[in-house]
Amino acid sequence: MISQEFKEMISAPSVIRALSVYATERGKEIGYENVFDYSLGNPSVPVPKELTEAMIELLQTKDSTYLHGYSPNPGNPEAREATAKSLNKRFGMDYKTDHIFMTSGAAGAVAHAVRCVTKPGDEVLTFAPYFPEYNPYINKAGAVLKVVPASTKDFQINFEAFEEMLNEKVMAILINTPNNPSGIVYSSETIRKLADLLRAKEKEYGHEIFIISDEPYREIVFKGVDAPYISKFYDNTLSCYSYSKSMSIPGERLGYVAVNPNCKDAELIVPMCCQISRGTGHNCPASLIQLAVAKVIDKTSDLSVYETNMNILYQELTDLGFECVKPGGTFYIFPKALEEDAIAFSEKAKKYDLILVPSDSFGVKGYFRMAYCVDTEKVYRSLEALRKFVKSEY
Amino acid sequence: MISQEFKEMISAPSVIRALSVYATERGKEIGYENVFDYSLGNPSVPVPKELTEAMIELLQTKDSTYLHGYSPNPGNPEAREATAKSLNKRFGMDYKTDHIFMTSGAAGAVAHAVRCVTKPGDEVLTFAPYFPEYNPYINKAGAVLKVVPASTKDFQINFEAFEEMLNEKVMAILINTPNNPSGIVYSSETIRKLADLLRAKEKEYGHEIFIISDEPYREIVFKGVDAPYISKFYDNTLSCYSYSKSMSIPGERLGYVAVNPNCKDAELIVPMCCQISRGTGHNCPASLIQLAVAKVIDKTSDLSVYETNMNILYQELTDLGFECVKPGGTFYIFPKALEEDAIAFSEKAKKYDLILVPSDSFGVKGYFRMAYCVDTEKVYRSLEALRKFVKSEY
Repeated sequence: MISQEFKEMISAPSVIRALSVYATERGKEIGYENVFDYSLGNPSVPVPKELTEAMIELLQTKDSTYLHGYSPNPGNPEAREATAKSLNKRFGMDYKTDHIFMTSGAAGAVAHAVRCVTKPGDEVLTFAPYFPEYNPYINKAGAVLKVVPASTKDFQINFEAFEEMLNEKVMAILINTPNNPSGIVYSSETIRKLADLLRAKEKEYGHEIFIISDEPYREIVFKGVDAPYISKFYDNTLSCYSYSKSMSIPGERLGYVAVNPNCKDAELIVPMCCQISRGTGHNCPASLIQLAVAKVIDKTSDLSVYETNMNILYQELTDLGFECVKPGGTFYIFPKALEEDAIAFSEKAKKYDLILVPSDSFGVKGYFRMAYCVDTEKVYRSLEALRKFVKSEY
Repeated sequence: MISQEFKEMISAPSVIRALSVYATERGKEIGYENVFDYSLGNPSVPVPKELTEAMIELLQTKDSTYLHGYSPNPGNPEAREATAKSLNKRFGMDYKTDHIFMTSGAAGAVAHAVRCVTKPGDEVLTFAPYFPEYNPYINKAGAVLKVVPASTKDFQINFEAFEEMLNEKVMAILINTPNNPSGIVYSSETIRKLADLLRAKEKEYGHEIFIISDEPYREIVFKGVDAPYISKFYDNTLSCYSYSKSMSIPGERLGYVAVNPNCKDAELIVPMCCQISRGTGHNCPASLIQLAVAKVIDKTSDLSVYETNMNILYQELTDLGFECVKPGGTFYIFPKALEEDAIAFSEKAKKYDLILVPSDSFGVKGYFRMAYCVDTEKVYRSLEALRKFVKSEY
């Protein structure tokens, strides 16, 4: 018999994906260029040309059994070494190759990290607003995800609510900065306070509390913004990264877990990840992309368009009277809706071909997310629609 | 605290991998060309040149956001459609694109298939000799793998033992033909008998019993061998494939689940696979390789070397007095060891730089596996070592 658990999940499709499907369908009627589709976080800029060149050169010059053969369980050694060196140079860390485990994007990284540091029934806390896929990532690993209410004034951490929710069953804190959907970057002050609190609670409870730091937007940080490297502040940190956004390769599914060399049982985490893969059927990201990324490890796509788009939208939204915390990074902005019911708000916006994601599935009510990974020209064209929408409906 | 479950798994490393590491180390001493390393099933022949050309052409001519963007959840539409058409043409099936779910190799395919058709505590039966990774694939999905003893005279199915083990809790049968490690292909007679028996048991128990057919060696079948397409014989079949062996791209992690259009709830299986991915952090195989494989779907590497190697080894082994069922496909041969303790036998073989995998972890005692995906020249050179080994030790 088919699994009732997964059958039931089919009928609760993602709000984001449903809006994206709507936008595509609407595009067939009026031309997709006329749909102001702010639904999906799909990078809009080309990959670094050096990455394409590296792939072509590898294909033209290297033996195919090397290029496409099995990677060792923890990933390709060149990719792991290049990753460790790059992190050490940029963030003053001391990673060895053995602290890096290559994964299928940040999704694969979080899936491994949570299985490393929880057993079934343990709690993992995260902070609203949060990426809704954390629910299956954590709950299907057997742990229980609990969401700390948002601090809506700045979208930093709501420490009061957090402290109330901390208890002995909490084994990991899942954070995401720069944040999807708010676009906010946690400040050094926030991270320091978080780290101090967790160290105190570790002593109190007599067990480690790991930070699982989900960092796919790490390279998309805007001018002048304080963007601390989390693991630098707290030893028991597993950093989960993806090259999806920084190199615009989300389809290639490449990321890693970087294990802080000073974390508890640091030398066991990567070997444990290898064991975890055996049960999930994941078994390493693809080989060619690992080899190519290793060659151009510090390159990124031209990410400046995201800051350009953010500034245009932030200006217009605040001019129109939206309450909005200015994003420090990512390609998301998260303004307050003009009515309490964000779903109704988003539904009305569709009349103006504006595709806005209501905040409910991010764990906050009354806001909406715009993913501005679209052409700047289209962002400009969307402003008129935004104005019409606000003036006609509110 | 780190997970004790996965920590404990570290200390039980794979016998195959341990032998492979030994072979590599020994190679550093005497030159790897002098180690007759029959440990790993890693394809030794180049990828089809058309595949390399397709990848280069895509990289040179297509927009990078198309090449490397997110695939839809069930996989790239071109890859799914090409797969369905190819299977229909070759095996007279009637797959639509919607019956194909792209996965990270056969490991990912089996991991999804088992979660589709079992709930925690259900039993899955497989037949010895079997691929030992089935243990984590099945048990970490929450089901329970039970192994039907081998029919050592021909390595077809031991139906007597199988019938004894069938019970109401059995929801799936996991078969692997052509088989790793025996190299045997199940005959049409075997499959027909299996299908008839399962249909009768489905009626008796009042629920479906799915066949999960693990078929990574489907294209490596030797001359004149009867190699039936399983799904043709039994509607409730989920076919799990990998391009790893047929195209020599194991590192690229590309495979699929093909859902028999007549199976129970056929239209739900692929959408359920999409839900399953959300919990395992798998989320689609890499995009470029999907696009490239779709363009050359019916190409394979030159697989003829495996039959050449098999014939050389089979002849020599039988000449030396080994009992051995002649392989019908794959790149494995599975002779009976010359003493009861296959581990001791394998240990003695090391003295002659012969790396042979003892059969214990495949669920049979007293046999050994040779993975002859090595250069034919090396196979020839290994014969002298084989002779010396047998004559000196037995």
